Amino acid sequence: MKTQAILLASRPQGEPTANHFQFETREVPALTTDQVLLKTRYVSVDPYMRGRMSDAKSYIAPFEVGKPIVGGVMAEVVESQNEKLLVGSLVVGNLAWQEYNVADGAAVQQIPADKAPISYFLGLLGMPGLTAYFGLLDICQPKAGETVVVSGAAGAVGMVVGQLAKIQGAHVIGTAGSDEKVAYLKELGFDEAINYKTTPDIAQALAAAAPNGIDCYFDNVGGAISDAVYDQLNKHARIALCGQISTYNATEVPVGPRPEGKLLKTSAKLQGFIVSDYLNRWPEGVKQLTEWYSEGKLKFEETITEGFDQIPAAFLGLFKGENTGKAVVKVA
Amino acid sequence: MKTQAILLASRPQGEPTANHFQFETREVPALTTDQVLLKTRYVSVDPYMRGRMSDAKSYIAPFEVGKPIVGGVMAEVVESQNEKLLVGSLVVGNLAWQEYNVADGAAVQQIPADKAPISYFLGLLGMPGLTAYFGLLDICQPKAGETVVVSGAAGAVGMVVGQLAKIQGAHVIGTAGSDEKVAYLKELGFDEAINYKTTPDIAQALAAAAPNGIDCYFDNVGGAISDAVYDQLNKHARIALCGQISTYNATEVPVGPRPEGKLLKTSAKLQGFIVSDYLNRWPEGVKQLTEWYSEGKLKFEETITEGFDQIPAAFLGLFKGENTGKAVVKVA
Repeated sequence: MKTQAILLASRPQGEPTANHFQFETREVPALTTDQVLLKTRYVSVDPYMRGRMSDAKSYIAPFEVGKPIVGGVMAEVVESQNEKLLVGSLVVGNLAWQEYNVADGAAVQQIPADKAPISYFLGLLGMPGLTAYFGLLDICQPKAGETVVVSGAAGAVGMVVGQLAKIQGAHVIGTAGSDEKVAYLKELGFDEAINYKTTPDIAQALAAAAPNGIDCYFDNVGGAISDAVYDQLNKHARIALCGQISTYNATEVPVGPRPEGKLLKTSAKLQGFIVSDYLNRWPEGVKQLTEWYSEGKLKFEETITEGFDQIPAAFLGLFKGENTGKAVVKVA
Repeated sequence: MKTQAILLASRPQGEPTANHFQFETREVPALTTDQVLLKTRYVSVDPYMRGRMSDAKSYIAPFEVGKPIVGGVMAEVVESQNEKLLVGSLVVGNLAWQEYNVADGAAVQQIPADKAPISYFLGLLGMPGLTAYFGLLDICQPKAGETVVVSGAAGAVGMVVGQLAKIQGAHVIGTAGSDEKVAYLKELGFDEAINYKTTPDIAQALAAAAPNGIDCYFDNVGGAISDAVYDQLNKHARIALCGQISTYNATEVPVGPRPEGKLLKTSAKLQGFIVSDYLNRWPEGVKQLTEWYSEGKLKFEETITEGFDQIPAAFLGLFKGENTGKAVVKVA
């Protein structure tokens, strides 16, 4: 049996293009004990994957040139040598960008498909939702009445962060890159939303939206938005550093005003994190997010692209701001 | 009765000079109930005071032009209307740069003069020692075998930080600005000490001194040393942001490589703080530092200048790296 696979063709310098990916037909190996054959239903494309295309030391190993890209995948069990995973079960896992994968049963996680649209297990109830949950609630710990700023607020993580902050009773400000996204954030219940691309003075816009200063900042973007936020922090502000998409494609070391003096003056905390720092609390997070979703307290949005061959394009679209909410590719 | 006082003459742009201070003779008011007349014995000069000379928003209010500079002072009670503070008692407090001050008894703190040289209550057993204690032990929390880097290690705070890190069993690296200071750090028990002024490649020197990477960074200095440290952080590194003396006299916003990407990749924490964040734990800190000092586990060094009229010069010397350990002025 054969499968299409998408490989890393070469490492990008700066912004990646379609040329950095290569399609190849590969043989699917036969199942051994405890393994399952998985048919890919949805593929998750995420900004953090840009980091793995480079070979710089980071929190996860780089992809290897000439090997398949690996990321979040939602798949259906179509053959099973694993007694716990019956044919027809739906699972999520960190799997190759392939139409079919063979995996050990222990390497994937079965999802309760009755709880939400199945692709949500790559989004609201998966890695991005949990990233929002732990970053906001563990690092920022917003209190009722405090002001929370979220950059990249219309992305998969940011839109959940803002809604979670509203559940905590905070005043929530989101930044995003189009008027459509800004309008969508208002629909989601954000108190204020700023189109950073069309706002002439982001610092002034933030000051107007956050008249009492900023207590929490959940940063997915970095760069100029962060510079403006750092200038308006309240004493004992908490910053969850989740992503820096504005700098991922930089070919030179990004330079900017040093933040340390501003963080010092406000006794602020800046905490970098990755959701896997919270692996041991994963079930707690899924349970709480599922509960809030069931109660109608959390909405979620996806930008769904169709077709296995569109995966690279959907990934590249992340850096052009093409997605609102979670970008996923429907494969089958 | 009259006293000499040192006033802020004008706000410096960039590096302060003697011209920013003005000597004046002032009338000492008569004591009212609960007040004491204090004769200044030692004046503390500290880098953070540079911030108060500017009028930018910060964690403490700026000094007022035409009013006396206020800072840490060790004084003797020479007249008392306060039954708890007898004539001859020694106290520390936040007092004006004057030969004599009148203060409410509640505004000063009596010191146990038998425990250590009295000037140490402005240093090891005062604000700088407690800054080291809380910043290192609460924010960095070094574990045995971890690597701790301290910038400004030969200063009043840094020399205590390094010794406390050794007590915790860490591998300790200090940076300082002269060969004499480096030699002194070795005497204090630092494992490695780097003269950042003469080392051609600070990143390389750090890599050699910290072959297992950096787990904790106690930063008094900022700038290029921090840039090098950020590149060598281990996963879950902790940074206590205590001072940024390299930037205090900058006339333009200091610019440098953005640290966020590095902090993100390592899930590092950067926490700004000021010792007053820990006011409620002050007695704990004094008790523990006094105990370690009594046991011979903590050494302390002072650079003592003599004479009330030398206070501005001693303060200005901080920014030229003239002091090893705590800079104090002996007044009487």
